[in-house]
Amino acid sequence: MSSSTSSSPQESVRRQNLGALLRYIHVRGATSRAELTNRLGLNRSTIGALTADLATAGLIDEGVPHETGRAGRPSIVVRPRSSRVYGYAMSLELDRLRAARVGLGGRILDERTAARPGGTDPAPTLAALAGLVAELQDSVVIDAADAVFVGSGLAVSASVRHHLGWADETIEPALASALAPHLAPAAGPFVGGLADLAALAEHTRGAAAGADNVIYLHGDAGISAGIIAGGRRITGYGGHGGEVGHMVVNPGGRLCGCGSRGCWETEIGERALLHLAGRTVPTAGAAVAATVIAAQDGDEGARAAVAHAADWLGFGVANLVNIFNPTVVVFGGTLRELYLSAADHVRHRLYTMALPACRAHVALHTPQLGADAPLVGAAELAFESLLADPLYAAKL
Amino acid sequence: MSSSTSSSPQESVRRQNLGALLRYIHVRGATSRAELTNRLGLNRSTIGALTADLATAGLIDEGVPHETGRAGRPSIVVRPRSSRVYGYAMSLELDRLRAARVGLGGRILDERTAARPGGTDPAPTLAALAGLVAELQDSVVIDAADAVFVGSGLAVSASVRHHLGWADETIEPALASALAPHLAPAAGPFVGGLADLAALAEHTRGAAAGADNVIYLHGDAGISAGIIAGGRRITGYGGHGGEVGHMVVNPGGRLCGCGSRGCWETEIGERALLHLAGRTVPTAGAAVAATVIAAQDGDEGARAAVAHAADWLGFGVANLVNIFNPTVVVFGGTLRELYLSAADHVRHRLYTMALPACRAHVALHTPQLGADAPLVGAAELAFESLLADPLYAAKL
Repeated sequence: MSSSTSSSPQESVRRQNLGALLRYIHVRGATSRAELTNRLGLNRSTIGALTADLATAGLIDEGVPHETGRAGRPSIVVRPRSSRVYGYAMSLELDRLRAARVGLGGRILDERTAARPGGTDPAPTLAALAGLVAELQDSVVIDAADAVFVGSGLAVSASVRHHLGWADETIEPALASALAPHLAPAAGPFVGGLADLAALAEHTRGAAAGADNVIYLHGDAGISAGIIAGGRRITGYGGHGGEVGHMVVNPGGRLCGCGSRGCWETEIGERALLHLAGRTVPTAGAAVAATVIAAQDGDEGARAAVAHAADWLGFGVANLVNIFNPTVVVFGGTLRELYLSAADHVRHRLYTMALPACRAHVALHTPQLGADAPLVGAAELAFESLLADPLYAAKL
Repeated sequence: MSSSTSSSPQESVRRQNLGALLRYIHVRGATSRAELTNRLGLNRSTIGALTADLATAGLIDEGVPHETGRAGRPSIVVRPRSSRVYGYAMSLELDRLRAARVGLGGRILDERTAARPGGTDPAPTLAALAGLVAELQDSVVIDAADAVFVGSGLAVSASVRHHLGWADETIEPALASALAPHLAPAAGPFVGGLADLAALAEHTRGAAAGADNVIYLHGDAGISAGIIAGGRRITGYGGHGGEVGHMVVNPGGRLCGCGSRGCWETEIGERALLHLAGRTVPTAGAAVAATVIAAQDGDEGARAAVAHAADWLGFGVANLVNIFNPTVVVFGGTLRELYLSAADHVRHRLYTMALPACRAHVALHTPQLGADAPLVGAAELAFESLLADPLYAAKL
């Protein structure tokens, strides 16, 4: 409603069309004008005018296709200027920090990783993240006049939120201050949950592309979910939805750090697996992989632990499938290894426990974007302002 | 995108504004032009032109307020023509059928109830529903030329879907055929889950008005949920989401009809309550109320059964609060009585089990629209086409 008062109807429709076109090539990559005409339901001259505007703003390139096997004049191809239109994506994980420069089209152009500073004060962590971004920025070699910096986004592991009690509302302004000396003014930094943003990335351009009802499960010390329902991210009132690790599945189970008994993560989390296998592996991230390998090598304790965890993994997935009726479930983080090592177990539980109508169309996948999914998702937050209004955002 | 090709940008903006204005008074009721100007962010002359169009289409009335205590010229009040712009709402419940004529603004103008025909063939049930609608239609006394019939919607209990295996895809065309002889062509019939539509009604104009993250729990023979997340209904890929009754909460519990053990509805459903209380009451709908009254009258068995069910009710709600981070949970159907009889029990479980961040802003409510919530929600489906494009729909 507000746009109709601030600009003419024609201008408002033009902005919508520019956004739709740029979003299309951001998601699908290089696309011919003929396909854009077809997919966006606009005529050729309108598409030509829109791509001219976007090219002038430095957001796309147009040219002949790299190769053409067909006779006749080939349709001009529109490409996102991935190396020149970029955002910064960061992830705050339990044991490490990551930052990446991500180009339009969701391409990771460059990245840095560091250990997460210890302690409960967020300041050193945010300074370290800003330091990684500064390093990335220093190595950008393109001419600033020809570059479009759109903004930044951060994915925060739910385990970090819980263990350290850091709320998004406090992280956002502190991160903005830490980044300010290094970056030109732009959108963000936006902060979201790691599983939420991984879900967004896999939904936009990964294992769940084209699916509107998706559950992305991320395992590290805890278990959390990113939910896409009806094509949109579902995060709840305060952004705290998706805490599936604290869905109680086994009221007679072990005590959880949250105070409840038999939370899902006490049955399938890293610590549960190690405990059951009678193992102690100091490096958190590698513990599940090590247990899974031991199980495959015939270690009976490890094998029993993996079977137990896989069984409860399928159990919890069945509950979520009954609640959400999704078409894709993606297993990320430590759950990727666990799922791959005992997919039959997981499927068996799902198929015997979930209602036929709810599970009828469910596919189980691992992340197509691998461990980069949270970064690519954090970048989507930064690109969102650009896609909503390409010319306005490009002027920032 | 398609609207921009089929009409001019100005026309497309005008339709959007007409829809926004009509939606506002549909949800809020009679509203002064001054408030509309303020809330919709449009100027006075635009509001005047829009209300003139809607009045000409027979959708609203304009006039001076019924009473005014203020000095000066009162702002003209815009009212929905509730008695002349209407849809038909139906509900297919476990033990009864209902149909209502619902006016713009969500007002039930007239209604009929009948017992649900037995058997597994949907035809007699749909014929009976169509019969109720025909009765309602026959008693409409307004001049057809001055009436606007917008369409119809049906709310189906999840228990009926399960027990009889009726899918929405088969109900929709069969209901359309049954209704066709009685009604003018219009939108629908749309079919939705009873809990989903009750959630929509309470979200639009009831206990959850203004809340964007809502869980509506409906109890009859089973338990199902209607979910509003980010302001929208969440129903999953095939409309089968919200099957929270088959979330397993107690793996050591009793066998459920679905084949699993310890489903939520085996702990808090009607049959569980009667079993625990050692009671057998033939009338399904009244069983929970009877048990609750017996408990209040000091019957020890009934008291223990209510305490058990209330405890597990809070348990499941805590799981859902962790998953959805809602601000409102509404207890409908038989869960209304159960919740009211042991609210402290439910709250205690919720507050000890759910994560503080997820439950921080949760309010627990009973339905403001009472047992009418599913009908009012089914009517919302019928009104949706009108609100999306008032002038086009009004011409139907």
